[in-house]
Amino acid sequence: MNNQSELRQRLTSQWGDGACLTEAIDRAPFETDFRKLFHGEALAILQPNSVTELQSMVRFASDHRLVMVPAGGNTSYCGGAAPDKSGNNLIISLKRLNKIRSKDPLGYTLTAEAGCTLASVQEAAESVERYFPLALGSQGSCQLGGNLSTNAGGTSVLRYGMMRDLVLGLEVVLPDGRLLNQLNGLRKDNTGFDVKQWFIGAEGTLGIISAATLKLFTKPTQYSTAMIGVAHIGAAVDLLSRLREYFGDVIESFEFLPESATELARQHLKLRDPFETSPPPARVLLECAQPRAWPELPERLAHVLMKLIESGLVLDVAMANSDRERDHFWSIRERIPEAQTLEGASIKHDISLPIGQLATFVSEAARVVQATIPGARIINYGHVGDGNLHYNLSPPCGTTKGSDTERQFLANQSAITRTIHDLVASLGGSFSAEHGIGQLKVKELERYEDPVALELMKKLKVAIDPLNLMNSGKVVK
Amino acid sequence: MNNQSELRQRLTSQWGDGACLTEAIDRAPFETDFRKLFHGEALAILQPNSVTELQSMVRFASDHRLVMVPAGGNTSYCGGAAPDKSGNNLIISLKRLNKIRSKDPLGYTLTAEAGCTLASVQEAAESVERYFPLALGSQGSCQLGGNLSTNAGGTSVLRYGMMRDLVLGLEVVLPDGRLLNQLNGLRKDNTGFDVKQWFIGAEGTLGIISAATLKLFTKPTQYSTAMIGVAHIGAAVDLLSRLREYFGDVIESFEFLPESATELARQHLKLRDPFETSPPPARVLLECAQPRAWPELPERLAHVLMKLIESGLVLDVAMANSDRERDHFWSIRERIPEAQTLEGASIKHDISLPIGQLATFVSEAARVVQATIPGARIINYGHVGDGNLHYNLSPPCGTTKGSDTERQFLANQSAITRTIHDLVASLGGSFSAEHGIGQLKVKELERYEDPVALELMKKLKVAIDPLNLMNSGKVVK
Repeated sequence: MNNQSELRQRLTSQWGDGACLTEAIDRAPFETDFRKLFHGEALAILQPNSVTELQSMVRFASDHRLVMVPAGGNTSYCGGAAPDKSGNNLIISLKRLNKIRSKDPLGYTLTAEAGCTLASVQEAAESVERYFPLALGSQGSCQLGGNLSTNAGGTSVLRYGMMRDLVLGLEVVLPDGRLLNQLNGLRKDNTGFDVKQWFIGAEGTLGIISAATLKLFTKPTQYSTAMIGVAHIGAAVDLLSRLREYFGDVIESFEFLPESATELARQHLKLRDPFETSPPPARVLLECAQPRAWPELPERLAHVLMKLIESGLVLDVAMANSDRERDHFWSIRERIPEAQTLEGASIKHDISLPIGQLATFVSEAARVVQATIPGARIINYGHVGDGNLHYNLSPPCGTTKGSDTERQFLANQSAITRTIHDLVASLGGSFSAEHGIGQLKVKELERYEDPVALELMKKLKVAIDPLNLMNSGKVVK
Repeated sequence: MNNQSELRQRLTSQWGDGACLTEAIDRAPFETDFRKLFHGEALAILQPNSVTELQSMVRFASDHRLVMVPAGGNTSYCGGAAPDKSGNNLIISLKRLNKIRSKDPLGYTLTAEAGCTLASVQEAAESVERYFPLALGSQGSCQLGGNLSTNAGGTSVLRYGMMRDLVLGLEVVLPDGRLLNQLNGLRKDNTGFDVKQWFIGAEGTLGIISAATLKLFTKPTQYSTAMIGVAHIGAAVDLLSRLREYFGDVIESFEFLPESATELARQHLKLRDPFETSPPPARVLLECAQPRAWPELPERLAHVLMKLIESGLVLDVAMANSDRERDHFWSIRERIPEAQTLEGASIKHDISLPIGQLATFVSEAARVVQATIPGARIINYGHVGDGNLHYNLSPPCGTTKGSDTERQFLANQSAITRTIHDLVASLGGSFSAEHGIGQLKVKELERYEDPVALELMKKLKVAIDPLNLMNSGKVVK
């Protein structure tokens, strides 16, 4: 409809000084996603300095019927913020909208703009002796707007819920440039439909989130962190259920690591393992947050775990005795993806199941994986307390990079993913627990979603974004 | 469009045996709301025995363009389930859909149908040693479907959130009779828009919720309950902030009661008051839930409260030393509405504010109340931990029932409500914290809601219920 270079000129003349980038070198970092699965070309990168400027940019895009792609820290696993190849998408980066607007320690809330990194939100909370619990590997670079738009999960969902559960208020620029102001810090507000819910997890397809008011929590005095050996995932699920009975909701994290995963970490990263002399078949990384008035927590935890060793449910326990040891335990967990990359090719899944189905899934899935790719190694680790597994595969032991075995392994990717996702669906699970849909999983959504739900999603999309300009091609088509 | 008696005949012939009630005497309990503010006439009361039967009833209504009014336990404060006067509304009572479909103690979930009373859901959780935390005065009669549709609050929101926060999955019959099946027990599921959120808190205007999968929690071993004297609401807010620093999220309830409220309870209900020899200006009812591994909690709490007496923030403390005493403390809190009714006429508000604004609101509101109705007594009690006050007024001391003073007091109702709600809005608060909109507050919603948000609500309503048959006239017109 419009000539590309003419449009670029108009954009540059309207928003100069870094608020509009049109050169290829400046566009490049935004044109490819984090996992390098999607490569597009953008018309320009717009970087508004204020919400008013953001609104006028959205109005420009709407007037010119240009697709807008909201961009955060570019850490999406599903290409949610990558442009298409048309050369006509406007990427709107929120990075300059990075103010902490207010902190309210008395009310346990803060209000931050979408371009704040997650780490800076956590720091703002800590600066007033409060705690913002969302925690992700990418927290130094991912941005609040992306966390909100993907309903981010992470390692403390068990205790605090997903991003959705942490939001009190939201400010959104709608596809026509108008501002939806639902930015309040109220904990109870039953005045009509809760419109802000629509935009959380919508991956920027309904509007651009510009700010949010977030719930804060009590800052834990210290953590009790333990590595706990168990026989299998069923035992891990049982263990969590028992520990919740004793400790209730001070359990913040409960991460599952099979020996296939920790072995890779020892091998490739030379990480010291508290269990290295006789590693158990699987282990759990448990973390409890200690309230100030409960100094006995670590001692109680050790006591309960010893009793569970006697009962046979727990095989081995290592408690972290210092912050350094705690960091070390966490690095074993967090560096699994890195170790798997060093091992070679991999096929990844981000699935969730009803917790009671995890053991069935793991044994069934092992069977179908072996039937499809004999010898494939299963590296299924993750947030087992939420029923969420990163069910990843590595090629058979000894496979070298670029070998035929590796090629054959990767050639099976869609077949194995189909089988895994079908199995997950048959057990009432989800093919995208925390990573979202983006571009990568649009077809999976169409395959597995209840058709009635899918139709409702499309109705909302049409009602809110009738010109289909907001991150079109993502989530629902 | 259709003759009333002919329609009644067709309904009866299609659904006999108590599934369809058309006689005036059977309709009557459904035609007037709990507070007796709204009186309508229904075409019939339909009571489906199964979800399939519910679907066919909805299809019948849709085919005949009849407005459907979903009904739960008839405990709404806003007339949300009362029919209009047309004689053409079909009331659909969910009471026979009252099965607990499944209980999963390992996964900490249960699935229940909409017609279950809240108490029966709590009992089902307890039967498997788990805990469903939503707690309301009306829990013996209110139904899960109503709790979901109004996003119910209650006395443990501080710790567990509103009803919305307790839902994992939902099953909904849409206005055209199709079934939306989002009934999973997944704690993480980022597959497209979270459609179930739209129906929670929609007061039956988008569809009829037939079942839900709910989050369960650790059953507390025991409770530590204390009555705590404070000088004013600002001190209560400060106290909560301090106690959260020590005890984190074991604080389940933090209810504020000014002396004006407890005085009425002593006087009319002859309730023994632990502080009766020298009642403080206000008090807080605090309750902490004790995890099994924290037996020291009551002792720590007493210790911290003693320190806060020394610091001057707390004026007096009474700890409940038995279940009986705990029940007694709670009855002082829960019987305030009854005491106020015995005192005579009242004007009621269900408001919320950012917690940091509560003290400002209370002093400003006292000023405008006295200016409008000199001598009016302010009975502002409630869930102060959530910023939610039931800001109620009684006529001046000594006013007798049916007196001119009482009439004059009531004649000021709309003026005072307008003033209170305006003040709430100016401080960033809400005119309906937990009771919803129903019929009662449709105009308030139009007055106070962000017009952009209101327009979006209407768009969703039209998209999902284009014939405007679902509880029409409620929430958004």
